Amino acid sequence: MPTRLSQLFVRTLREDPVDAEIISHRLLVRAGYIRRQAPGIFAWLPLGLRVRSKVEKVIREEMAVAGAQEVLFPGLLPREPYEITGRWEEYGDGIFRLKDRKGADYLLAPTHEEVFTLLVKDLYGSYKDLPLTIFQIQDKYRDEARPRAGLLRGREFSMKDAYSFDVTDEGLDASYQLQRDAYERIFARLGLEYVIVAADAGAMGGSKSEEFLHPTPIGEDTFVRSAGGYTANVEAFTTLVPDAIPFDGLPEPTVFDSPNTPTIQTLVDLANAEQPRADRAWTAADTLKNVVLALKHLDGSRELVVIGLPGDRDVDLKRAEVAFQPAEVEAANETDFVGNAGLVKGYIGPWSATGLILGSESSTGIRFLLDPRVVDGTSWITGANIDQKHVFGLVAGRDFGSDGTVEVAAVRAGDPAPDGSGPVELERGTEIGHVFQLGRKYAEALGLKVLDENGKLVTVTMGSYGIGVTRNLALVAEANADEKGLVWPREIAPFDVHIVATGREEAVYTAAARLAAELELIGIDVLFDDRPKVSPGVKFGDAELLGVPTIVIIGRGLADGEIELWDRRSGERTPIPVHDAAQRIATEVRGA
Amino acid sequence: MPTRLSQLFVRTLREDPVDAEIISHRLLVRAGYIRRQAPGIFAWLPLGLRVRSKVEKVIREEMAVAGAQEVLFPGLLPREPYEITGRWEEYGDGIFRLKDRKGADYLLAPTHEEVFTLLVKDLYGSYKDLPLTIFQIQDKYRDEARPRAGLLRGREFSMKDAYSFDVTDEGLDASYQLQRDAYERIFARLGLEYVIVAADAGAMGGSKSEEFLHPTPIGEDTFVRSAGGYTANVEAFTTLVPDAIPFDGLPEPTVFDSPNTPTIQTLVDLANAEQPRADRAWTAADTLKNVVLALKHLDGSRELVVIGLPGDRDVDLKRAEVAFQPAEVEAANETDFVGNAGLVKGYIGPWSATGLILGSESSTGIRFLLDPRVVDGTSWITGANIDQKHVFGLVAGRDFGSDGTVEVAAVRAGDPAPDGSGPVELERGTEIGHVFQLGRKYAEALGLKVLDENGKLVTVTMGSYGIGVTRNLALVAEANADEKGLVWPREIAPFDVHIVATGREEAVYTAAARLAAELELIGIDVLFDDRPKVSPGVKFGDAELLGVPTIVIIGRGLADGEIELWDRRSGERTPIPVHDAAQRIATEVRGA
Repeated sequence: MPTRLSQLFVRTLREDPVDAEIISHRLLVRAGYIRRQAPGIFAWLPLGLRVRSKVEKVIREEMAVAGAQEVLFPGLLPREPYEITGRWEEYGDGIFRLKDRKGADYLLAPTHEEVFTLLVKDLYGSYKDLPLTIFQIQDKYRDEARPRAGLLRGREFSMKDAYSFDVTDEGLDASYQLQRDAYERIFARLGLEYVIVAADAGAMGGSKSEEFLHPTPIGEDTFVRSAGGYTANVEAFTTLVPDAIPFDGLPEPTVFDSPNTPTIQTLVDLANAEQPRADRAWTAADTLKNVVLALKHLDGSRELVVIGLPGDRDVDLKRAEVAFQPAEVEAANETDFVGNAGLVKGYIGPWSATGLILGSESSTGIRFLLDPRVVDGTSWITGANIDQKHVFGLVAGRDFGSDGTVEVAAVRAGDPAPDGSGPVELERGTEIGHVFQLGRKYAEALGLKVLDENGKLVTVTMGSYGIGVTRNLALVAEANADEKGLVWPREIAPFDVHIVATGREEAVYTAAARLAAELELIGIDVLFDDRPKVSPGVKFGDAELLGVPTIVIIGRGLADGEIELWDRRSGERTPIPVHDAAQRIATEVRGA
Repeated sequence: MPTRLSQLFVRTLREDPVDAEIISHRLLVRAGYIRRQAPGIFAWLPLGLRVRSKVEKVIREEMAVAGAQEVLFPGLLPREPYEITGRWEEYGDGIFRLKDRKGADYLLAPTHEEVFTLLVKDLYGSYKDLPLTIFQIQDKYRDEARPRAGLLRGREFSMKDAYSFDVTDEGLDASYQLQRDAYERIFARLGLEYVIVAADAGAMGGSKSEEFLHPTPIGEDTFVRSAGGYTANVEAFTTLVPDAIPFDGLPEPTVFDSPNTPTIQTLVDLANAEQPRADRAWTAADTLKNVVLALKHLDGSRELVVIGLPGDRDVDLKRAEVAFQPAEVEAANETDFVGNAGLVKGYIGPWSATGLILGSESSTGIRFLLDPRVVDGTSWITGANIDQKHVFGLVAGRDFGSDGTVEVAAVRAGDPAPDGSGPVELERGTEIGHVFQLGRKYAEALGLKVLDENGKLVTVTMGSYGIGVTRNLALVAEANADEKGLVWPREIAPFDVHIVATGREEAVYTAAARLAAELELIGIDVLFDDRPKVSPGVKFGDAELLGVPTIVIIGRGLADGEIELWDRRSGERTPIPVHDAAQRIATEVRGA
């Protein structure tokens, strides 16, 4: 039976909701697909639920092709498994925690690695049982600090999460590839542009990880891409390390007065004025900037660490979070400086005439980590650890060492890709899928072992694969909308055809109802705008707003045996004869 | 493609899980359908999820027939709407509450009346928009004190909840009937026996309510049924009130000594010894028992109330909970008696020679409520409010009054049905569905009004209709199991056919695979036990445990062109020729 718009639980709105920042959010609310219940928490109206079910169907079909089996876990889970892997603590404020009436701790699960691991441990015990990939489509919870952009960053959202279990690393590679391939097919079917980028395995604690990013100006993530094909999100980008330079013949360091040099630029200006170079002017890239960060460790302790990086670079706190996880990172504050008298604020450097200042072996004992560009033999202008004094010609590897390198400098357009494929561009994107090789971390922590061919217990290696259902739906809406409303790809449109009957002639409504019934009979989903007292203009506006890909207008032309086919995306209207309309429309819908 | 048992994520267990009290729980765990995650919280394995999806499909189809439209609400909801209707408090310990990172209060919704009301208020504004019935199939949460019996009383469970919206009472009646009819069709399709009983509208605050109970000895509810067709759960049962009796000629009350009468029986014995009746012996039914209850009101206050009821009856605390809701009820404790010196424990009665003792107008001021059988003119033996003394011939309406009647006495087999349809029997049952006429309570509280035909704002009247998805699944399992395992009705079986290939002949496995493929091609879901190294005995045992209704055995007989059809329910095995097996099996499955 066709769905009659006069009966459908929907109301279209002419006004944008006040809290909606992006197109998809505005349109999904205005077109009556979703309604906000709380920040980042939405109810789904019939139209929205239809689209959501279709996205789920696409995912289920491709999971079946990939040989993954569906299960379903609860959203409410006990603390213990997450305690064992340390994630109960690591998630910080990012998850919802609660107690039951007996005072036992629970969480609303943000992801399910632990309990999937335990389930497989419960059921399986032999290498013969593996490989196994199981998945669920389930509502997840994250207590986001800033739920935003409608469905894009929700606090309750639907995800497909899959987990693979293998005995060998090669097995994991194969399982990983099956999911990765399935994701490519899913995004192709959703019509969602994507880039696969190397990602940091992050809090998941894995070994290899790739993100599927959808390039979009509203994206929260930044990723880099080289003409030669390198892609990575900025957290995973690694610096192309220059060769070390021989020290021979490099002049000794010279301390000089540098009053009134609060910024790198004033220091560079002073250097150019006082000690001009013959070949070129000094630039910020010739200075070594020493940035003091404070790490808040899980055990509550606070550690200062100094990052030495070229003065033309800033520390990217998101990269730093990844580099130092699970610790939290922030800029050092006044109290930190007061407590570390060895650091002369504004004039910090690794070296002073009396000895090393930075590094775990130095007088301060503060860890000193270098940007990978600061290779041995590079010479720097940097602080001399004396108020109003800097030093020229301080050579890495000769005058100072470090506790290692760290990837925390902000990535810039033009930076060389680490694989030699040329300079990178920076783009905005949103994560639409994520594939992880977790390795043995979870299986180890939770004791998931199986007997191998020789009867020996071996720890299982795992993968974890996530794809957002509701987020992807929103991104499809975002990517396909125009100023008039939603434009759904056929694969996930709430209906295949939207029939609009106009005017007041009863014959028109009868013909429209007959065509709708005919189409439903051959398996085409029809939304039938049968509202008798609504003007054609309002009906057309609603049709454009709702975004069903094929619209059929039945009105005055019917007397001459003609109706109109209206393509929502192109806007093109084509008159077609009513007598074989069903056939013609079916061809249009099925693309045959 | 048929599902191969060698690949399916399942393990059957020979041992019953230690925590499983009832058959369905034991078998669903042993057959690999579900796994416990926490008390009352389960994960669903592939077999379980298939059955669950089929139950959902039955419900969705019947909701469509009833004209209900599907939506989906979040499980995590803000406190405010529940605060307005008072349910945030009323639920007491029965719900999960939590705070987000900003300290805002949320709950995991146990039911969604408030937000459905608000959604309709948000979208609709005219009588022309109504009637409307919308529903969801969604995971609900209740923090049960004693989660038990596997899926029967879970803390996270799936429900279909529907809500109807009408302008008129007649409209509500019609919407209610549509859902009620749908429930009857659903239970018929699930093959689940049911009784529709009058129910107390209870915490939902409505005006009319019926429960669908599945009669089962493991049920938590008790209901009554008369031969004449009256049904009610005991909470909703009402007493057939006897006629009042004239006072004329009834003797005056006499106080008598009654030492050592700690029980009703000792009191009756004493009465028969000291003041024997001419016509018959005194019985417990001639005594008036005065039971002191303590009500804990929502505002935290504690009120004592005394119930006067025939001495052969006990107070049923579940009926008392309903009678006094939203207050909680418990027996009065020692402290209560200490604080109310007017009550002479063991000798409490409404009357003393010096005046009335019970009732809001009496010396104690304690509310006194009577069982409806204590009509005016009835004469009682009861406490005299003096230690070791009782009174004879205390006449209701003459010697004492009350603050009204109350339905808290335990119902007994043989009690007359209130509609005059004869004595009732008591049976155990479990609630499998509930239909409520909420009336205007929620719409009133949350301001859901629409314009009527005259342009006047009127408050909408609502219904609420719940049916448990996971609970019903468990009850179907429970009602159909035998000592060998599960026995699914075809409508919700995880597969239509379970093909078992036995022995080691490759030809057998090839033929089985061919038959499986053939059946799948004509739309029959097949589970194919293709495990090469498992004995026939184990395979048959697994088939019986898993409970697919039609089992096909392919083994040695194949050489003679014969295979076996095995009906799981009857146990009957029928040899059939392999050459037209697919056709024969299809007929069996489709019941044609």
